[in-house]
Amino acid sequence: MIEINGDRLLADLRALSRIGARDGGGISRTAFSAEDILARRWYRDRCQEAGLKLTFDGLGNMTAHHPDDEGRTPAVWSGSHIDTVPNGGPLDGAYGTLAALECLRRITEEGLPLARPVRALVFTDEEGNYGHLFGSYGLVNGYRAEDLAGMVGRDGDRLIDTWQDFPFRSEQPITPLDPATVAGFIELHIEQGPKLELAGLDIGVVSSIVGLGGGRMEFRGRADHAGTTPMPLRADALQAAADFLTTLPQLAAKVSDAAVATCGILRLSPDAANVVPERAVCTLDLREPSRAGIVALHAAVETTAREVAERHGVDVVWEPDQIIDPTPMDAGKQQAIRDACDAHGFSRQDMPSGAGHDSQNLATITPTGMIFVPSHEGRSHCPVEYTDPEQLVRGANVLLTTLLSLAS
Amino acid sequence: MIEINGDRLLADLRALSRIGARDGGGISRTAFSAEDILARRWYRDRCQEAGLKLTFDGLGNMTAHHPDDEGRTPAVWSGSHIDTVPNGGPLDGAYGTLAALECLRRITEEGLPLARPVRALVFTDEEGNYGHLFGSYGLVNGYRAEDLAGMVGRDGDRLIDTWQDFPFRSEQPITPLDPATVAGFIELHIEQGPKLELAGLDIGVVSSIVGLGGGRMEFRGRADHAGTTPMPLRADALQAAADFLTTLPQLAAKVSDAAVATCGILRLSPDAANVVPERAVCTLDLREPSRAGIVALHAAVETTAREVAERHGVDVVWEPDQIIDPTPMDAGKQQAIRDACDAHGFSRQDMPSGAGHDSQNLATITPTGMIFVPSHEGRSHCPVEYTDPEQLVRGANVLLTTLLSLAS
Repeated sequence: MIEINGDRLLADLRALSRIGARDGGGISRTAFSAEDILARRWYRDRCQEAGLKLTFDGLGNMTAHHPDDEGRTPAVWSGSHIDTVPNGGPLDGAYGTLAALECLRRITEEGLPLARPVRALVFTDEEGNYGHLFGSYGLVNGYRAEDLAGMVGRDGDRLIDTWQDFPFRSEQPITPLDPATVAGFIELHIEQGPKLELAGLDIGVVSSIVGLGGGRMEFRGRADHAGTTPMPLRADALQAAADFLTTLPQLAAKVSDAAVATCGILRLSPDAANVVPERAVCTLDLREPSRAGIVALHAAVETTAREVAERHGVDVVWEPDQIIDPTPMDAGKQQAIRDACDAHGFSRQDMPSGAGHDSQNLATITPTGMIFVPSHEGRSHCPVEYTDPEQLVRGANVLLTTLLSLAS
Repeated sequence: MIEINGDRLLADLRALSRIGARDGGGISRTAFSAEDILARRWYRDRCQEAGLKLTFDGLGNMTAHHPDDEGRTPAVWSGSHIDTVPNGGPLDGAYGTLAALECLRRITEEGLPLARPVRALVFTDEEGNYGHLFGSYGLVNGYRAEDLAGMVGRDGDRLIDTWQDFPFRSEQPITPLDPATVAGFIELHIEQGPKLELAGLDIGVVSSIVGLGGGRMEFRGRADHAGTTPMPLRADALQAAADFLTTLPQLAAKVSDAAVATCGILRLSPDAANVVPERAVCTLDLREPSRAGIVALHAAVETTAREVAERHGVDVVWEPDQIIDPTPMDAGKQQAIRDACDAHGFSRQDMPSGAGHDSQNLATITPTGMIFVPSHEGRSHCPVEYTDPEQLVRGANVLLTTLLSLAS
């Protein structure tokens, strides 16, 4: 059985992790930033060394392939992203991107005759500075000029200004990809959660990417002087919000063991130390593997918030986000991944992905599968993101075996 | 019994309320702003009409007196402030300032022979844009040049830049006032709370200004991915903070009926919708009429926060502010105010002030009293701040009668 070059993959991961590295160990490579350009140049140089050709589309999504495979379709795709969240870690995206490149290098080195060519992909702005899963969404669905014109990054910069003269973007029209050109997509990724490590397993075979709900829960009370208003006469929006927030763990547990409910942003107004809060706005993130579960979570937070608000004598306004449906992974691809694990003798389990990935978009046009490796303590999107090097090599070998089975 | 000119007082309140008026009914007259200059010009013109002389000190505190009383001490003082919070109401400060002026005008008109002269005061920046009760604090304690050099307003402007060329500030040295020049201070103010209105009473005789405690309660958990981290494995700082905040009403009630505990500012980090909060910092405002009560409140919030943090598996750091002691009002002045109420046949009750006032500073050097009138629904520091005009006139008459008894 052919295997990847583990030392080369790990060296590549170390090299890429130095691009955008910050004091304190974090990495910042925002899409279209100077760091993104440096990282892409480095990736292009790796492709050139390996005799691979690199092309890019109008969104900056990049594809590496062997020159002999130019125009050969349908192709088996694998890849991920190299942009990071601000002060992120060395593995999220980078691991799946460089493992796909390593698989393509090994296939090229071995000169294997394959029924279908394999391509290594790098998707733009997976972390969504300009749009949710920006590059893979546009690849699959296209964008209208007015959509792009309205996109603004977290620093307030307009996409269409920022990507002017970006050297890894072509003049290619931004229209939906022809699904007939793709024979399947496999993404390797760190779990970003603690389940595999806790279970002591090598590999997660992703069954589905969980659905995403949530929204804006605003409690509206009355601003009063913090010194002169007796406690029983207050309509304190934060007291209501706090009471509501303490119920989130139970509300999630009632729906399922896999359901999660998070408030990561809470805004008060008038936001003054000596004024009873008039408004408290909670931004909720609700996830569950089934659409029915998310619908149930939406209903539960709304009902509970209304009860709490009534008890506190405040009003509540619930503005739910549109639900993003769970994305099941292709049954055939899941089986191919299981078979690859078993061929290598690696332990595994099926599991949902709690995080969103480019695979969500690819799954709408081609049979898609995802492979997880353990994340130490489940930490991700932060400098301490870590996976044991042996596990990184195991995951890449499962990817290679899976791609070879799909390409044969 | 001589009375104030109610129509004139109410007309003055209406006129002053137009200076700094904003769309939506709010009033913004920050200390040393252009609106502050306009308001002071208007006040100076009223003094000139009434044949009164206006002087100002190095901080912009202003004193109106009859020219014949130049240099006569000790004098009976009354007054308040004309600066407002951003988008404040028409009565906080303005009422006590204009009622003191009206009293001085009536005394002048009547040509009453008084043992001690009466002076009407306007204190600078009571709302504390540059420092807590800025003008009255400096009047009583003085400021060092380095204190003033470090003061910055909420918009980031340095005091010593902002007050350059301010036309209502003299070159007088900023040193503590000689207490021998003051024979007592009486401040008339709206209650800014609902107690008098709920009790159906005309006048509050302030027994003390409550003490002020509080501080910064920081819960420190762990930032985790909101999609991939199971609920039981989280160390969510906001869950701990919410649990803690819901206990504030009980903690205050255990100390006394008058105790209040407020969290008006809450900051999360990393403050991202899809990340479990790592830190939640609550800014607490704790008030009680006795020092022992504030000490008990400080102890209660700390103990409870530690229990809650342990239950949630997070750390907590409590950084208490220095306690500002309660300020008792002078017994003799309280009695003079009660007697004035009774002379007019107005109903009254003794009560603490939950809000801070310039009287706190004056009380450290001279016997001080405060008179409250009802605030409709207890609303203050906002555009709907309102007191029935008849009640405003009653309060001013109590002030006049009290000042006359102190000056006789």
